[in-house]
Amino acid sequence: MNLPENIIKNLRNKTPLVHCITNYVTVNDCANSLLSIGGSPIMADDEAEVEEIISICDALVINIGTLNQRTIKSMLKAGKKANELGKKVVLDPVGVGASSLRTNTAMELLANIKFNAVRGNISEIKTLAIGAGATHGVDASAADAINKNNLVNTVELAQSLAKKTGAVIAITGAIDVVANEEKSRQIYNGHPMMSKITGTGCMCSAILGAFLAASEDGFAATTAAIASMGLSGEKAWQKVEAEGLGTGSLRTYLINELSLMTDEKLLAYAKIKA
Amino acid sequence: MNLPENIIKNLRNKTPLVHCITNYVTVNDCANSLLSIGGSPIMADDEAEVEEIISICDALVINIGTLNQRTIKSMLKAGKKANELGKKVVLDPVGVGASSLRTNTAMELLANIKFNAVRGNISEIKTLAIGAGATHGVDASAADAINKNNLVNTVELAQSLAKKTGAVIAITGAIDVVANEEKSRQIYNGHPMMSKITGTGCMCSAILGAFLAASEDGFAATTAAIASMGLSGEKAWQKVEAEGLGTGSLRTYLINELSLMTDEKLLAYAKIKA
Amino acid sequence: MNLPENIIKNLRNKTPLVHCITNYVTVNDCANSLLSIGGSPIMADDEAEVEEIISICDALVINIGTLNQRTIKSMLKAGKKANELGKKVVLDPVGVGASSLRTNTAMELLANIKFNAVRGNISEIKTLAIGAGATHGVDASAADAINKNNLVNTVELAQSLAKKTGAVIAITGAIDVVANEEKSRQIYNGHPMMSKITGTGCMCSAILGAFLAASEDGFAATTAAIASMGLSGEKAWQKVEAEGLGTGSLRTYLINELSLMTDEKLLAYAKIKA
Repeated sequence: MNLPENIIKNLRNKTPLVHCITNYVTVNDCANSLLSIGGSPIMADDEAEVEEIISICDALVINIGTLNQRTIKSMLKAGKKANELGKKVVLDPVGVGASSLRTNTAMELLANIKFNAVRGNISEIKTLAIGAGATHGVDASAADAINKNNLVNTVELAQSLAKKTGAVIAITGAIDVVANEEKSRQIYNGHPMMSKITGTGCMCSAILGAFLAASEDGFAATTAAIASMGLSGEKAWQKVEAEGLGTGSLRTYLINELSLMTDEKLLAYAKIKA
Repeated sequence: MNLPENIIKNLRNKTPLVHCITNYVTVNDCANSLLSIGGSPIMADDEAEVEEIISICDALVINIGTLNQRTIKSMLKAGKKANELGKKVVLDPVGVGASSLRTNTAMELLANIKFNAVRGNISEIKTLAIGAGATHGVDASAADAINKNNLVNTVELAQSLAKKTGAVIAITGAIDVVANEEKSRQIYNGHPMMSKITGTGCMCSAILGAFLAASEDGFAATTAAIASMGLSGEKAWQKVEAEGLGTGSLRTYLINELSLMTDEKLLAYAKIKA
Repeated sequence: MNLPENIIKNLRNKTPLVHCITNYVTVNDCANSLLSIGGSPIMADDEAEVEEIISICDALVINIGTLNQRTIKSMLKAGKKANELGKKVVLDPVGVGASSLRTNTAMELLANIKFNAVRGNISEIKTLAIGAGATHGVDASAADAINKNNLVNTVELAQSLAKKTGAVIAITGAIDVVANEEKSRQIYNGHPMMSKITGTGCMCSAILGAFLAASEDGFAATTAAIASMGLSGEKAWQKVEAEGLGTGSLRTYLINELSLMTDEKLLAYAKIKA
């Protein structure tokens, strides 16, 4: 697949303002990854201000990583307003399936808000698509891991959720899958060590908000966001390994690579297959 | 302007304990920057404990970056107690102007608490001073950016807010302005890349609390705090660039430079003009 | 003392899932340190989900660093459920003694939950053991600092709290003390610069949850966890100093060292005395 030629450049030119209602574990990484790729973050989760905040923003990213009663209301309010105003909306259903609170909330969000994209690991997307996924907390269950044998099923799963929601679905893992109702792509970038730092999924969803806000084509924007994160992680790990460093540096270098990303690099090194 | 000769040394000797009621995006950076410059942080935001916490501390920093109904009450309670006990108090009005919640809360805080210093970007300070600033979320609006042409107006703006509040006002941006009713300084340190990481403003306000607590002269303390942050950012970026790294490393190196700051460096490299 | 030979290897093989109800200052470091040592973190603090979350986890770590009314209930609920299900439970009484809210909550937690281990600085443990410790916010008071002269008293203090609670007690500082009712160890790893970054205590408690979940012997697990953190901090600082870096890099390198920790290193360099 050919990605649009200037997707990174356009993003940096537009500097989309992305409203995040997100968890407190990886919120700093989400803000810094948004800045590194060329967006501008604003985190705001009080019911009293989310409608005003989304009104001045270009996209909304809802992440249920540390869900609580107070912010569920804010998510619903912000999401509905975003829909009303035609802003792009992303759902990151962190840990859905691990508790009824997360599962019920994710379902309520899907029922009330039209999402442009949903990004999760295979266990999370399974839970949303068919109501049952294995779960290992916020990580994908090993039983669910994407490989060449179950790739066809994984694409079907993504497409069934795309059909149900109208969103572009991104499943990230050893192989990433991006799908809408009509088409799908697999992305072979990334490195297994990315799962040894927290937040690679959350950051991916955050920058996805910026990519969607800066592009007309939601499918291409999602593919480019996922590939940018995978490529950055893979390059970051190469450097970490070459220097004999560890996972603390991987986190830092991943954001470095996002900040150094260009269309030239992305087009040259993204491994995307139809 | 000559900064006091031992301001960093005094700070490190006193190890002021700084109570922060702050946002969850940059809270870790605030804690680490406070430690790096020689202070000691304690983050506490429950209404039930803020009065006791400020009582054992030397300064209070109120930051409205991720404001919510619960912590507004804590801010008011802590601020009033700080005033009663003669502790230094700093306001960082993050994103004021972006929502009524932020604007109303900032105004309520200013009406009820006497601040020793207020630090914000130009859009935020405009909102506080004249009730209207452009806003690009938590970043200054490009329309408001400080440059040589509007510098006189910017100083006047800062001084009008200084007069209204009795606080030293710091406006940070391409050029930083520090002003009280009688005098003003411009600081030419820093680097544009500092805006590509989250938290440089929040960290600046956090260490400002420590500088104020360790000094008799609030104007000099504020000037030194702002110059220390600018100088650290500028030195950090030089190293990041020389090593071909990116914004992830900029965040790390900025805290490195704060931890390596000395009076000698500050006096030698701070670019402060009256 | 001989540590078990494969304690790190076993931990990495089991990948214990650790439920943390923790503060928002160091939560990201807790998650990344858990991943770096071989565990898997899940942060969840809403009353409505904590019982379900602990049910799928191997250990619970309760940290009162930014306590609030909402999460106190969640802590109690999660802790009781963990006890019921036989999951390992750790308490990190951050800043206990600095406010009645913290002191009363810690006492309530100890009265209602059986902890396998409690880790704190000397001021915090003193407060829990005898109801009165000096306090310098979240840091140990200088008046309380552990040294060779008060080491016997410190061990007695730890053992009295061990007797009262049934938990293994770990006091971390210049010298670390680990004690249960019958025996005690002192650990001479670590470096004073570790106190210049936030979160070394919190991270230590987080990985302690993983060590406990992966081992039959709670005393050995606690000793190994404390020694791993001290050794990682000491090695991290050596590299930071050799490269002329500062405390920003210390934080990163500390997590690097945890991720590079092996049984061989731990057995070779841990300085543990009976």
